[in-house]
Amino acid sequence: MSPAYPELEVRFRRIGALAAAGAMLDWDAATMMPAGAAEARIEQLAHLALTRQEYLTRPEIGDLLDRAEAERAGLDAWQAANLREMRREWRQATALPPDLVEALTRAANRCELRWRKARPDNDFEGLLPLLEEVLRLTAEKAKALAAATGRAPYDALLDLYEPGARSAAIDLLFDDLAAFLPGFLARAVERQARQPQARPPAGPFPIERQKALGESLMRELGFEFERGRLDVSAHPFTGGVPDDVRLTTRYDEADFTKALMGVLHETGHGLYELGLPKAWRLQPVGSAPGMALHESQSLLIEMQLCRSRAFLEFAAPAMRAAFEGIGAEWEPANLARLYQRVAPGLIRVDADEVTYPCHVILRYRLEKALLAGDLKLADLPGAWRAGMRDLLGIEPPDDRDGCLQDIHWPSGAFGYFPTYTMGAIAAAQLFAAAKRQDAAIEPGIARGEFKPLLAWLRREVHGRGHLHHTDDLLRLTTGAPLSVEPFKAHLAARYLA
Amino acid sequence: MSPAYPELEVRFRRIGALAAAGAMLDWDAATMMPAGAAEARIEQLAHLALTRQEYLTRPEIGDLLDRAEAERAGLDAWQAANLREMRREWRQATALPPDLVEALTRAANRCELRWRKARPDNDFEGLLPLLEEVLRLTAEKAKALAAATGRAPYDALLDLYEPGARSAAIDLLFDDLAAFLPGFLARAVERQARQPQARPPAGPFPIERQKALGESLMRELGFEFERGRLDVSAHPFTGGVPDDVRLTTRYDEADFTKALMGVLHETGHGLYELGLPKAWRLQPVGSAPGMALHESQSLLIEMQLCRSRAFLEFAAPAMRAAFEGIGAEWEPANLARLYQRVAPGLIRVDADEVTYPCHVILRYRLEKALLAGDLKLADLPGAWRAGMRDLLGIEPPDDRDGCLQDIHWPSGAFGYFPTYTMGAIAAAQLFAAAKRQDAAIEPGIARGEFKPLLAWLRREVHGRGHLHHTDDLLRLTTGAPLSVEPFKAHLAARYLA
Repeated sequence: MSPAYPELEVRFRRIGALAAAGAMLDWDAATMMPAGAAEARIEQLAHLALTRQEYLTRPEIGDLLDRAEAERAGLDAWQAANLREMRREWRQATALPPDLVEALTRAANRCELRWRKARPDNDFEGLLPLLEEVLRLTAEKAKALAAATGRAPYDALLDLYEPGARSAAIDLLFDDLAAFLPGFLARAVERQARQPQARPPAGPFPIERQKALGESLMRELGFEFERGRLDVSAHPFTGGVPDDVRLTTRYDEADFTKALMGVLHETGHGLYELGLPKAWRLQPVGSAPGMALHESQSLLIEMQLCRSRAFLEFAAPAMRAAFEGIGAEWEPANLARLYQRVAPGLIRVDADEVTYPCHVILRYRLEKALLAGDLKLADLPGAWRAGMRDLLGIEPPDDRDGCLQDIHWPSGAFGYFPTYTMGAIAAAQLFAAAKRQDAAIEPGIARGEFKPLLAWLRREVHGRGHLHHTDDLLRLTTGAPLSVEPFKAHLAARYLA
Repeated sequence: MSPAYPELEVRFRRIGALAAAGAMLDWDAATMMPAGAAEARIEQLAHLALTRQEYLTRPEIGDLLDRAEAERAGLDAWQAANLREMRREWRQATALPPDLVEALTRAANRCELRWRKARPDNDFEGLLPLLEEVLRLTAEKAKALAAATGRAPYDALLDLYEPGARSAAIDLLFDDLAAFLPGFLARAVERQARQPQARPPAGPFPIERQKALGESLMRELGFEFERGRLDVSAHPFTGGVPDDVRLTTRYDEADFTKALMGVLHETGHGLYELGLPKAWRLQPVGSAPGMALHESQSLLIEMQLCRSRAFLEFAAPAMRAAFEGIGAEWEPANLARLYQRVAPGLIRVDADEVTYPCHVILRYRLEKALLAGDLKLADLPGAWRAGMRDLLGIEPPDDRDGCLQDIHWPSGAFGYFPTYTMGAIAAAQLFAAAKRQDAAIEPGIARGEFKPLLAWLRREVHGRGHLHHTDDLLRLTTGAPLSVEPFKAHLAARYLA
């Protein structure tokens, strides 16, 4: 009998290609597709996903995995990691009864649809029964995944987004931050009040010029437009595949600063995709280890690099030139004050980097309690208000700007939220390590020399694909697993120094 | 045992969805995709095609087809036609040995790649060995399809593009035209010489305005932008799926007339797709009966309708307004002379509607002779020159503008060419029938009232999908199978009256 592993690579190439086709169609649906095509597109995507699922759950795949694992001694590190991820994908695909998958998909679609109306209507009561059904089925899913993976139910969901992550470890990190941030925030806000006020440049800022500026900074950072594009969508995201990276943003003619930083955020995601190991295209090991590390790359570029005073020294002339700006608003010092403003707010997606983790910790704690049955969905609005008070010192006047603000739970994505803040923590940790390991990185920033940073990221992060889970990769590149100290040090340097 | 036919619909829905996903990715590759993504896209498309092929050739599909055919008495006309087309797709998928499919794909890819250089280099000798390989394998494919379908080899290829078509019938139509056109062309050119010369409006014509004008005329004709788009590609085409129709064009700032008529041509294809029967999405019977009828819809809109003096009376003010045009160039009479110019030329894709069939007849005769072994590929350049002399009275100075001009043969598409002129013939036949059957159609044109025409096309052509093969549909809607007389009458009315 011929060795099983090479045969698995052939099978997973097909599985990867079906997923890649779906990724391109997802991008198209958000950017190009006319509204009347939605039903047809949903059907195309559903059939692609089903075909992938059927292919992945064929009996011979399980047999091949068993045999390849028995023959593991003959594999190199990349192949062994690829096999590990094949098994993980297979386990997830086979762990859930098809009826449950279908019921959950249906319930989540219904709930998400209702949520789109319930949020503007501030109608938590109306959403409640549909959300209860999603939660009930998600808890079933967590149980089934837990049985298949030997994890606790919440950790089994977490593992879908961030392989290898454990809530016990996240608890430690998040409890540390939850203790640290409220006091830190107060000091940062106090210091900010003593500084000159940030003054936003006055528009209008024509969209074509915003796009040209964004693309020119993307190029400076190393984005390759031969393998990617920048377009417009209602909700900015990075889509596509590693050789065809599709970034999106949303422009506001009255304020260029938000879209620009949004573009730079997605550029971080995009650089990651572009740098994934070429030799492992369409194989499981050829992708990122999870959402946390992916988010770390967008936040490293956006928060660590592009919101820094040094970067803004470099970028200010280009911003000014793009819009023929005149006056003190265009000085790097003012731009830095704009891009480093701190203020507790109700809405997660509008939050600055100091308050953002508070929003995430709140959601993380609530979703764990919901799944464990320790919190009833009917009590969510109250628990939300209490959590906001504790963590951010403010309270939403209604559910619209409270527990109804995010699409995640209505769409069935429990276990996703913590990856945002794990990403922010990893970004600080990786950026600190990069600057420590290559002395050329930090002084280059104000001069617009990003090649040393990109080279480090390519070598230490992007090019490693999913060879290691996130914590192991961080150990290898920074000497420690995910740790909050560099993040706290970064906040202190930026907001208290 | 449950009836087989409903189960087949389920299976073919999957097959149709995989093809639909491929169609969207083809469009993206031609319009949006960055150049560096080509390799990744080829792989996605190849896996989609392979998955579709594997699904279609599963043993149970053959069994289900057998059973459904035995139970055919219980089916209505649409279901029976759908079953007929399922069997046709299955037969084509199973008729060819996988080795042959792979060898042909590879040879055609190689040959097409070489052709992209050989054409500008005027290097027929260099292309010859690769083209010989493509022809050899295509002849094998024709033989295998012939054995599976009981057709002659050339007809078996024809059947891939135009189901049910027979070269014996095409010979009669084309011989008739070949006898008629050279004399007609001489008279049309002579008459044209006695008319005032057509004067092209002077540009530049900004692309944004060309696009807006094209889209406004598309809307007037009934194109629904909720289910379609207009974009730019190097080679204009109509892609996508019936609820997501993607038209493309190519603009020239110095001349708006070509892109505009190109857009109207694609609009004809697009209206057809938009009008296909909603109840049969993703099923074989839900698509067009073949390339000839599809081309008839683009040529009906472009040639029969939009190049007519009546349509130009309607459209001239919009054209003039779009570019703030002044002067006699913008008069309908001059625009009609521009859009109805006749002149024998070397290049098929630049040909007018009088000379176009001569280009097609030449290629049709040559490809039949090549496949039959009656013409050696080495003798093709000479045979081409002789045919051009006979049919058009001119001779290419080199192969670049002779037998190297088309991508069809290098890419393995033998049997496709005749559908262009079958489409032109059907367009005239359908337009004549439409005007005869609904007296509101003709007088409405100059007033921009196209609803009666679209309603007729929806009912008599688009909405019928592939319920009938082309000849049967023409019999039903016009009272006769494909016939050249309406085409000849159209030419006489436009070019000699």
